[in-house]
Amino acid sequence: MKRGLIITGGTPPSKELLEREIEAADGIICADHGFDALGAIPEKLLLVVGDFDSAVRTQEIQRPEIPAEILSPMKDETDTEMALLRMLEYKPEEIRILGGTGSRIDHSLATIFSLEAYVDGETRILLVDDSNRLEILGEGRYTFSKDGYTYISLLPLTDSAIVSTEGMKYEISALSLMRKRTRGVSNEILDNTGTITIHKGHVVVVQSSD
Amino acid sequence: MKRGLIITGGTPPSKELLEREIEAADGIICADHGFDALGAIPEKLLLVVGDFDSAVRTQEIQRPEIPAEILSPMKDETDTEMALLRMLEYKPEEIRILGGTGSRIDHSLATIFSLEAYVDGETRILLVDDSNRLEILGEGRYTFSKDGYTYISLLPLTDSAIVSTEGMKYEISALSLMRKRTRGVSNEILDNTGTITIHKGHVVVVQSSD
Repeated sequence: MKRGLIITGGTPPSKELLEREIEAADGIICADHGFDALGAIPEKLLLVVGDFDSAVRTQEIQRPEIPAEILSPMKDETDTEMALLRMLEYKPEEIRILGGTGSRIDHSLATIFSLEAYVDGETRILLVDDSNRLEILGEGRYTFSKDGYTYISLLPLTDSAIVSTEGMKYEISALSLMRKRTRGVSNEILDNTGTITIHKGHVVVVQSSD
Repeated sequence: MKRGLIITGGTPPSKELLEREIEAADGIICADHGFDALGAIPEKLLLVVGDFDSAVRTQEIQRPEIPAEILSPMKDETDTEMALLRMLEYKPEEIRILGGTGSRIDHSLATIFSLEAYVDGETRILLVDDSNRLEILGEGRYTFSKDGYTYISLLPLTDSAIVSTEGMKYEISALSLMRKRTRGVSNEILDNTGTITIHKGHVVVVQSSD
């Protein structure tokens, strides 16, 4: 599988973003409330996973044509993490997560932090909403396309990280960034692509519109 | 000074929250766009700080009765950090930050991560919005009031943290939590108060409504 799509709870994506991501996906897994964002049931739907202790569409999950996995509410993993684990079984090149951030800051942070568990895996995992595209990256050299986003920010998730950039408005060369400092916010890709080299540490890379 | 209030950019607070926090504050500093949230100029306003390269009320900042500090847009600190540094000069017991989170995930993360720089200081610093109250805490024992919030979540900001709780729905005792795992989300204070003991590490504590 090339691209997997996970739709999870939080602020629902716009109709445009949802349709674009469903179109581009090879397989879809919904985590609990993420299922509520779907209007029709796409043929690409692989699984709906969650404890459904609060989902408004619990009844609908019972329909035989919907592949569902009901989890214990006492499990250690969040619904989003379970959806990720199931999607990784298909070994996609890339997974996009829609939702996962919203009014509850604890949920947003937990979703973002949990992506660090997959930083050294084969699959790139992106958290996408209508204003942002977020990824956590470990050591390596990565190319980013502008893709209509204005800003690109580099935020160390480990205590510190050593990072270089090429093709950015504010270039850095093997600069040590600290998590508690915020020097890497609001850089810009000058032309169509820029590269980020992470020499040490884990970095949250966020591309955002204004 | 007992309580300092910083009003910064991002999603503007509701009128109710803004008025409540202004009423309870002993002094107020606005960071750039945070100034736009104010209707009238409160007597408690100590300073407006920012580069104002984009503020819609740049003209108003020039008025002589408004104490303002114009920063270089190329500075290393964000406007919110500069507001924090200026507020700390008054040595308040507690600082509340309104705003600082919003549609741009990089800004939200940068605001939260930057609070870690003050984790061992004398002043407790809380990030407050209409659904959440967030604090970063280092080693020590802390009492939390329910204060109408439903959930309390513990998220390690350091790679790991060792934490105990008392008076919570899911009690933990010297449990090692990892940032990339999300086991500490959606705990609940059972009665009016609960305590959190951090034996090691830095922890983001978020109280949130549903």
